[in-house]
Amino acid sequence: MSKRLCAEFLGTFWLVFGGCGSAVLAAAFPDVGIGLLGVSLAFGLTVLTMVYAVGGISGGHFNPAVSVGLLVAGRFPAKDLIPYVAAQIVGAVVGAVVLYLIASGKADFSLAGGFASNGYGEHSPGGYSMGAALLAEIVLTFMFLIIILRVTSGDVPAGFAPIAIGLTLTLIHLISIPVTNTSVNPARSTGPALLVGGWAIQQLWLFWVAPLLGAALAGFANNALFEKRPGVVVGTPA
Amino acid sequence: MSKRLCAEFLGTFWLVFGGCGSAVLAAAFPDVGIGLLGVSLAFGLTVLTMVYAVGGISGGHFNPAVSVGLLVAGRFPAKDLIPYVAAQIVGAVVGAVVLYLIASGKADFSLAGGFASNGYGEHSPGGYSMGAALLAEIVLTFMFLIIILRVTSGDVPAGFAPIAIGLTLTLIHLISIPVTNTSVNPARSTGPALLVGGWAIQQLWLFWVAPLLGAALAGFANNALFEKRPGVVVGTPA
Amino acid sequence: MSKRLCAEFLGTFWLVFGGCGSAVLAAAFPDVGIGLLGVSLAFGLTVLTMVYAVGGISGGHFNPAVSVGLLVAGRFPAKDLIPYVAAQIVGAVVGAVVLYLIASGKADFSLAGGFASNGYGEHSPGGYSMGAALLAEIVLTFMFLIIILRVTSGDVPAGFAPIAIGLTLTLIHLISIPVTNTSVNPARSTGPALLVGGWAIQQLWLFWVAPLLGAALAGFANNALFEKRPGVVVGTPA
Amino acid sequence: MSKRLCAEFLGTFWLVFGGCGSAVLAAAFPDVGIGLLGVSLAFGLTVLTMVYAVGGISGGHFNPAVSVGLLVAGRFPAKDLIPYVAAQIVGAVVGAVVLYLIASGKADFSLAGGFASNGYGEHSPGGYSMGAALLAEIVLTFMFLIIILRVTSGDVPAGFAPIAIGLTLTLIHLISIPVTNTSVNPARSTGPALLVGGWAIQQLWLFWVAPLLGAALAGFANNALFEKRPGVVVGTPA
Repeated sequence: MSKRLCAEFLGTFWLVFGGCGSAVLAAAFPDVGIGLLGVSLAFGLTVLTMVYAVGGISGGHFNPAVSVGLLVAGRFPAKDLIPYVAAQIVGAVVGAVVLYLIASGKADFSLAGGFASNGYGEHSPGGYSMGAALLAEIVLTFMFLIIILRVTSGDVPAGFAPIAIGLTLTLIHLISIPVTNTSVNPARSTGPALLVGGWAIQQLWLFWVAPLLGAALAGFANNALFEKRPGVVVGTPA
Repeated sequence: MSKRLCAEFLGTFWLVFGGCGSAVLAAAFPDVGIGLLGVSLAFGLTVLTMVYAVGGISGGHFNPAVSVGLLVAGRFPAKDLIPYVAAQIVGAVVGAVVLYLIASGKADFSLAGGFASNGYGEHSPGGYSMGAALLAEIVLTFMFLIIILRVTSGDVPAGFAPIAIGLTLTLIHLISIPVTNTSVNPARSTGPALLVGGWAIQQLWLFWVAPLLGAALAGFANNALFEKRPGVVVGTPA
Repeated sequence: MSKRLCAEFLGTFWLVFGGCGSAVLAAAFPDVGIGLLGVSLAFGLTVLTMVYAVGGISGGHFNPAVSVGLLVAGRFPAKDLIPYVAAQIVGAVVGAVVLYLIASGKADFSLAGGFASNGYGEHSPGGYSMGAALLAEIVLTFMFLIIILRVTSGDVPAGFAPIAIGLTLTLIHLISIPVTNTSVNPARSTGPALLVGGWAIQQLWLFWVAPLLGAALAGFANNALFEKRPGVVVGTPA
Repeated sequence: MSKRLCAEFLGTFWLVFGGCGSAVLAAAFPDVGIGLLGVSLAFGLTVLTMVYAVGGISGGHFNPAVSVGLLVAGRFPAKDLIPYVAAQIVGAVVGAVVLYLIASGKADFSLAGGFASNGYGEHSPGGYSMGAALLAEIVLTFMFLIIILRVTSGDVPAGFAPIAIGLTLTLIHLISIPVTNTSVNPARSTGPALLVGGWAIQQLWLFWVAPLLGAALAGFANNALFEKRPGVVVGTPA
């Protein structure tokens, strides 16, 4: 079990350090910055690369919403949920702290820039309402989990799932960074929010509620529409 | 059959929600927007990811032109055409509606911005004539179908077809967004046009005629040049 | 044989229409243009997609330099060279003509913009000298052929070669569009040059000499360093 | 052995010529330059393409830190380290020299622009401190090696490792070009530094110390956490 939790820790560390790192360090670099397209690619590649690296060990969730969606679909045992989510949150927080240590090595750095935290309303990058943020995060996490559940169902030849899953996360960011800075992952939202505090903590609830709801709905929908599986299991994973 | 139609619905939903969503929400975001390159990548990734996810269920058309091209090439039974196209149109419309609900959560949103509708003449993003739009949509859909027909012909090892097909759609957008906003897919054109109304409805005919014509020509050409198959079948798919 | 020549025609058509098309139509679109990065991606994807589509038929050269490099390495029979190169040139010219028909559907279009022709000196996009252009085209075509020869040598699992080859062409464009607009392919240079005339024709020699020289050197070097094969064959391909 | 050293020479040549070449020639091209996103993609694609091409011959290190990390993990014999690192340095220097010959074919070229050298403090692109540079290079090389060690451990189906490894290098650049211009590779740092001289030589120590330290730590960590292998071997590789 500790090997699996190390894998989840390291994968979620990489997701937050790399994804938020590209946003904080490189997105708005003068003239040649990577922009939202580069950040979208970076988030997707953190998952693509670490699912290749440790997917064979832990399944490569790196995201409480993924763990919950797999659980609802009967692919992940309930008894492993708490340890997995704990490892993911610790990984996300350590990722945010290491990023902070690097980012603060620049003279004019300030956490007041948002540090890639997720937000809605006046803290949405494009000024989108709480309702729009809720709907976007639910729909996007729903589709993320549908794709994850399908490409790991045995229909796709071995080796292609990490490409499909990583590029889905890139696509999700291409759509929604302006709306919420894109979460679809409560651990990813929690890491930067703990450092930024204030509004980022106050708005954090949405980035737990919406992704988990979207993921759970996907778990049900996938089994009802495509898999005809029974759903939540308590024992060993299917 | 309902499982296959669910797959077509969900795939076309994702194509319109994700592709048009990236255009409406993120393309022109100030300073760090994803631009036409990001939109091109997003459209391609909607198809790449959902062909991996549900290609094994429905074939992963998500596009009436693809269904027609496969039918002409004898790979898709005529009796399934109407249900497939219906599921695709419904998916496209629902995708556009959900996108509208999110996009309208920003104070200054207006459908008058075009909402990623396809157009020509004064509604072409770069001001291209109707003739140029017709030719571009016919040629691009022709090549899209040639590539789809070839990479699903059995010559390409299992698992690579979704990459080739998705990246072809990205390439098509890299070429032609300035000309027509890129359709090659009548369902994708119909979704936003129904919400925008007016000119978008008046010009919609071109985005049915040109893609279907290009796709049908590709079905004939592929069989004549490369496959030596008989063509349209009425019974079960080959 | 005619099936193989159709494949070479269609692939080279796609390379010029799609690659030069993205440059002419979309690269400098106001505010959201795809830039040299988008053009680089487009060129690479034309090859990636068509090698998947018709590589199994013709080998997927789409480029006289590739045919010559494979010939020198003993992988392609000398008797097929002229028909292949002829099909490639016809494909490139048709690609340029169809692109012209679309591009000229915009009121302010002019061939005087260069139409994605290759050039050096005052016609180099960044003002690079003839010597720099020669060296760049030789070195880049050399590496292109080394990679092509190696990934089709049997060491790489089936299905991955089109990804490696297409992305090599993307990389080559990322490096060298400012130097020569990037050729590494005499057919690709010939298509637009015939329409533009004047300087583009006068400078065309370099984009035949340098790629063919680089490719031939790679054929020798690959066999000497890595393959220990005999080289040029006159009969059937290895 | 000479065949393996040729492969390491050519791969590291391509990494420096292509990666630094995209930065020097194309990153800041007026209006349509490829930016840091294009440079990140270029560096990753040099490795992706050459690992496909010659990974089967030499293992495809192209980087002293990779050789050291593999050695510490017991995957690479100590007796081969010096020849590999020598071939990598020679390849990097030749790559920088050939790039110089091309780049200096433009009238206003000057090495004073930095020539893609790595740096910290006042020579960090974004003005990041030496401490931030050290931490970034250690953490990023650590993760680079963890991913390399895992995807070549036998858990990942044949053919996917070059994609995972190349895209990891793209991701690393997306995060850290503003901090140090991104090294994670002492040979890549050495090539341009020898031409630029002065500050680039004075700061070169960091781009040997940090990547080698991060790589060695990854070799230990990987075996302790995931592999349960013994570590450094002196004889033939595992």
